[in-house]
Amino acid sequence: MNFCSDNVTGVAPEIMQALAEANHGTAWPYGNDDWTRRIESRLADIFERKVRAFPVATGTAANSLALACMCPPYGAVLAHEAAHVMVDECGAPEFYSGGAKLIPVAGAHGKMTEAGVAAALARWRSSDPHQVPLAAISLTNATESGTVYRPDEVRAIARLAKAEGMRVHMDGARFANAMAFLGVPAKAVTWEAGVDALSFGATKGGAMAAEMVVFFDDKLAESFAYRRMRAGHLVSKMRFVSAQLNAFLADGLWLKLARHANAMAQRLAQGLLRIPGARLRDPVEANELFVVLPAAVIAGLREAGAEFYDWPGEPNLIRLVTAWETDPAKVERFLKVASEVAARAA
Amino acid sequence: MNFCSDNVTGVAPEIMQALAEANHGTAWPYGNDDWTRRIESRLADIFERKVRAFPVATGTAANSLALACMCPPYGAVLAHEAAHVMVDECGAPEFYSGGAKLIPVAGAHGKMTEAGVAAALARWRSSDPHQVPLAAISLTNATESGTVYRPDEVRAIARLAKAEGMRVHMDGARFANAMAFLGVPAKAVTWEAGVDALSFGATKGGAMAAEMVVFFDDKLAESFAYRRMRAGHLVSKMRFVSAQLNAFLADGLWLKLARHANAMAQRLAQGLLRIPGARLRDPVEANELFVVLPAAVIAGLREAGAEFYDWPGEPNLIRLVTAWETDPAKVERFLKVASEVAARAA
Amino acid sequence: MNFCSDNVTGVAPEIMQALAEANHGTAWPYGNDDWTRRIESRLADIFERKVRAFPVATGTAANSLALACMCPPYGAVLAHEAAHVMVDECGAPEFYSGGAKLIPVAGAHGKMTEAGVAAALARWRSSDPHQVPLAAISLTNATESGTVYRPDEVRAIARLAKAEGMRVHMDGARFANAMAFLGVPAKAVTWEAGVDALSFGATKGGAMAAEMVVFFDDKLAESFAYRRMRAGHLVSKMRFVSAQLNAFLADGLWLKLARHANAMAQRLAQGLLRIPGARLRDPVEANELFVVLPAAVIAGLREAGAEFYDWPGEPNLIRLVTAWETDPAKVERFLKVASEVAARAA
Amino acid sequence: MNFCSDNVTGVAPEIMQALAEANHGTAWPYGNDDWTRRIESRLADIFERKVRAFPVATGTAANSLALACMCPPYGAVLAHEAAHVMVDECGAPEFYSGGAKLIPVAGAHGKMTEAGVAAALARWRSSDPHQVPLAAISLTNATESGTVYRPDEVRAIARLAKAEGMRVHMDGARFANAMAFLGVPAKAVTWEAGVDALSFGATKGGAMAAEMVVFFDDKLAESFAYRRMRAGHLVSKMRFVSAQLNAFLADGLWLKLARHANAMAQRLAQGLLRIPGARLRDPVEANELFVVLPAAVIAGLREAGAEFYDWPGEPNLIRLVTAWETDPAKVERFLKVASEVAARAA
Repeated sequence: MNFCSDNVTGVAPEIMQALAEANHGTAWPYGNDDWTRRIESRLADIFERKVRAFPVATGTAANSLALACMCPPYGAVLAHEAAHVMVDECGAPEFYSGGAKLIPVAGAHGKMTEAGVAAALARWRSSDPHQVPLAAISLTNATESGTVYRPDEVRAIARLAKAEGMRVHMDGARFANAMAFLGVPAKAVTWEAGVDALSFGATKGGAMAAEMVVFFDDKLAESFAYRRMRAGHLVSKMRFVSAQLNAFLADGLWLKLARHANAMAQRLAQGLLRIPGARLRDPVEANELFVVLPAAVIAGLREAGAEFYDWPGEPNLIRLVTAWETDPAKVERFLKVASEVAARAA
Repeated sequence: MNFCSDNVTGVAPEIMQALAEANHGTAWPYGNDDWTRRIESRLADIFERKVRAFPVATGTAANSLALACMCPPYGAVLAHEAAHVMVDECGAPEFYSGGAKLIPVAGAHGKMTEAGVAAALARWRSSDPHQVPLAAISLTNATESGTVYRPDEVRAIARLAKAEGMRVHMDGARFANAMAFLGVPAKAVTWEAGVDALSFGATKGGAMAAEMVVFFDDKLAESFAYRRMRAGHLVSKMRFVSAQLNAFLADGLWLKLARHANAMAQRLAQGLLRIPGARLRDPVEANELFVVLPAAVIAGLREAGAEFYDWPGEPNLIRLVTAWETDPAKVERFLKVASEVAARAA
Repeated sequence: MNFCSDNVTGVAPEIMQALAEANHGTAWPYGNDDWTRRIESRLADIFERKVRAFPVATGTAANSLALACMCPPYGAVLAHEAAHVMVDECGAPEFYSGGAKLIPVAGAHGKMTEAGVAAALARWRSSDPHQVPLAAISLTNATESGTVYRPDEVRAIARLAKAEGMRVHMDGARFANAMAFLGVPAKAVTWEAGVDALSFGATKGGAMAAEMVVFFDDKLAESFAYRRMRAGHLVSKMRFVSAQLNAFLADGLWLKLARHANAMAQRLAQGLLRIPGARLRDPVEANELFVVLPAAVIAGLREAGAEFYDWPGEPNLIRLVTAWETDPAKVERFLKVASEVAARAA
Repeated sequence: MNFCSDNVTGVAPEIMQALAEANHGTAWPYGNDDWTRRIESRLADIFERKVRAFPVATGTAANSLALACMCPPYGAVLAHEAAHVMVDECGAPEFYSGGAKLIPVAGAHGKMTEAGVAAALARWRSSDPHQVPLAAISLTNATESGTVYRPDEVRAIARLAKAEGMRVHMDGARFANAMAFLGVPAKAVTWEAGVDALSFGATKGGAMAAEMVVFFDDKLAESFAYRRMRAGHLVSKMRFVSAQLNAFLADGLWLKLARHANAMAQRLAQGLLRIPGARLRDPVEANELFVVLPAAVIAGLREAGAEFYDWPGEPNLIRLVTAWETDPAKVERFLKVASEVAARAA
């Protein structure tokens, strides 16, 4: 009963199969292979327009490379104060950009709001070279709180950013979960809403180690190949990264896996809310739950072998993450233990 | 008949099998898993001492991270003028170190010599802050010319470097091929000879995307975890990188695969030297051949479907690379075509 | 009546005289001159201990170089959210450190508090390489709000920082004004209180372009000479920077000039508080006033030729800065205009 | 008799006078002052076209900032192997650019040749992201060997560079000496010949600490203000840097001072060549001599109080530098001592 993260899971069988199939004969290295070439056309179908896309192995690399293409060394990037790029990448965006400043924006449930962004812009806008010029904004979708930006929320923030001459990045480590929740065309929450580049994650969604940087503005991609190479992120036997991505994108696998993860999160949420004293910190929209439970319930779950993280912010707050492979039976067992412990404690 | 590079090959069956076996259940991410833990003990057996080791996905990442642990942003790194770190990584060591200067050292057959290093040290040694202080030297073994540093060659260069207070790095993207050629204990050409950190490659040797940074001096490893994370090189589902490395290191697979690659190179070399007008630019010691062939032979080979790179430096110079999977029949065919074309041309 | 900043002023006559006197004959460049050598002994007198000191031409250089000696590229620096290093140096600390993260700490009147720092430490403390390790804290004294840290305030914050293994920097662009206010020995608010390095400013205090980085811990100074050189901050004809600093430090000139500036600020404050509706945002302790005045008074002052900046944060807030050369008659005229306008408006 | 460098000298009286005159009243900081504004129009006269110009305090800052405007972090800069940017700035261009690679080009007498540059371009030209893209070339004029590039030499090299899409920088720390030697319009050896940006030095030529970055292409200047600020090179009381530059440029003072320095070098050269065994390593064109003298003469000169540097490269090679203030009597005395010692030794 491991609900620690979606990165404790393994690789979806369709993707393992694709790796095995890619392992025949020789192939040109560094992305000059058929698997890599196919990615952009699959993405063109999904986003209903031509895109530039580059596979990398990690989400931190995807985010940092994308932001470095958008922000000069002396520029500033706005992001939610709890965003991965802000607090969980050991300064990777600063490293890749050559010293950019990341400016935290507060906002409930992991989301920046139009008003919050407007206030930050008013605070930091300047044409004086004593201040870092505003260069980009990064939205995480689904957010670090398990919530999802709606298209109009993205559009409103992007419009503010564009009016300042800024670029818009979306950290989509869990983009599939966001899309599975939204049920809109992928374009609605990305380029149509003003997003210039997307880190489109596959690893948490069922791949082994595979992410894509998707550019909706060719111009931004100009330096990407050099930046990726000098960061050591140009995998030589690239076909094995791209084969994962092809399988992930083919036949809607990415959405199917994400829908399952989201459904398991909903089931967990509904079950836990029946526990007296249980409370969700945030609406459950994607595949993460931040839930306050009675201390006895938390302890009882751990005794029964459940694994999850305590979460900072308030007492008895835990995080539960579901994934593409979460077994409904595991969810049921978890809920059964929780309600039994709660009943005993009552 | 693709002899372009060892990175055009796929993944060795033992390593694919290890990936499949690792894909069961959940595992702690970011290297807190059993596969990763096992690597250091396997390496301890190979190097006959305790080491610190960190898996990464690419050789450029391994080299750059290792050098960044050895060289301050304002320092200098000596390396052979044709070294991968010097000319084939798009400035990755400069990026990771924060601006270090890479100083090229000439030397025949891809190798720096004791005299060459001594001259470079005399040229660059300074205590004046106008000059970058000498911080590290990087030896590539096997070299970019397919040759191999002997233990006493490494020792002589390392001794000079240590006398300047410099650290010694070995780029071992093809370390297995070097070891297969040398037939000495791994320690003889590494820590016993003065090497402080080794980039130990597996990708070219049969893995999918897996390399190790091996530190023989714990102190150098202190900042590694932070540097790797902020470079986006801490793979979340690390078990799949480490499973490759475990399989590669277990039961001498790494050496077995390298011996085959080297043997194929020898067979190619011996066969080609029978062609009138053929000449090896460098001794063939590992799995690369740099060979001058009559233009007609080169053209004939390509017509017959052989793939390989023309190499800069002199006319009609080509590079042939063998690998863990090179089929002896493919070598025979290549040689047969070459000798037939040569005979026709004569 | 220019109260815009202390950097709109010229050079104190004693310092101009020192420049003229230094302009005889030849002198060794790059700080190997008598003027530069004398600085450390003057500082030893002032701080009652041996120090290492390095002249540079700007405060931003002093701060950034000092912080780069304290914080690795992947580390974090705490500072007040309105600190110069945080918002007015166009990312210089990020540039010099190679990508460090600056973490803002709130606090009234430009000062971090013990509680505020403790909370920030609790928020950011981590041994997980996903988070930037806490490396340094920077206090500005006098602050950007014209207030002054007392020795026990510095000590309390420094003690918290040291307990985390962090280093303590003091941005003393207006250190002289702080010392003139405090009336304690210089050591009391620096090394005795836990400060490891001080940016000791002279430019705002009456020099042309001269600041010192003063290290109270020799170890931190080890890389300074290299970092300064590669930043282009090793002035070749250094005697002319050092001559300024010698004159500034000699015979208590620095304190005398600062006392005058502070006294003029007090006079302004007392006079303005007699205006109905006037309110000081912060206690006036050094040479800056942040004062809310009736809009009519602000307009009337400007009509009369007074120059000062509107300040963000609230309506009708202005900043007034006095300096070493502020003419008491100018202050009186300013106050007279203000009270006349106020009387007319009443 | 100090011939060590032109930076051992003081400040020309006209420039000291200008500093004294600038020291009246208040002035807007950070370059928003009349002195700074006047620089561009003076330069427009000198270069016979509109330019953008930015004062900084050191030559290393000028060079590094200019190159950072021309070369991305992953790019390459060609320069002579003995250029200041290559070997005497502790990696400043690497720091400012964020990791660019400096590629040394050999060439007699401190000068790159058209053939040498063509060969370097052929060696490094690549569209493969494994290699750093060629971004800029930097010519030093006058060179580190005391020689001077002619307009047609600059033009030939610039044409090659432009054909690769590269930018052309001129390090003119001793541009005045070059111009005094050439006797052509300033445009002939700069923008007309293809130079995009010039580091125009005044410090060695008689200023205290003042250099200009002059852009002949506005587009390159776009990021300059931010880069200068975050490097701590935006001097707050800028009028005192700009006053130096105004005096330097006014009424041809820069050329007058440089002509004197060059004339003194010629006198030294002619005098020394009369010493049996004396030999000039390079033609003397600007204000530096690299001369081989009998060991006894070198020793005798030092005994008589002469100061100069031994120079690496060959035995008994010394460097002599003349300057704007070099007293002809000092030159005569030096020559007299030399010839007397030589006579005694004969």
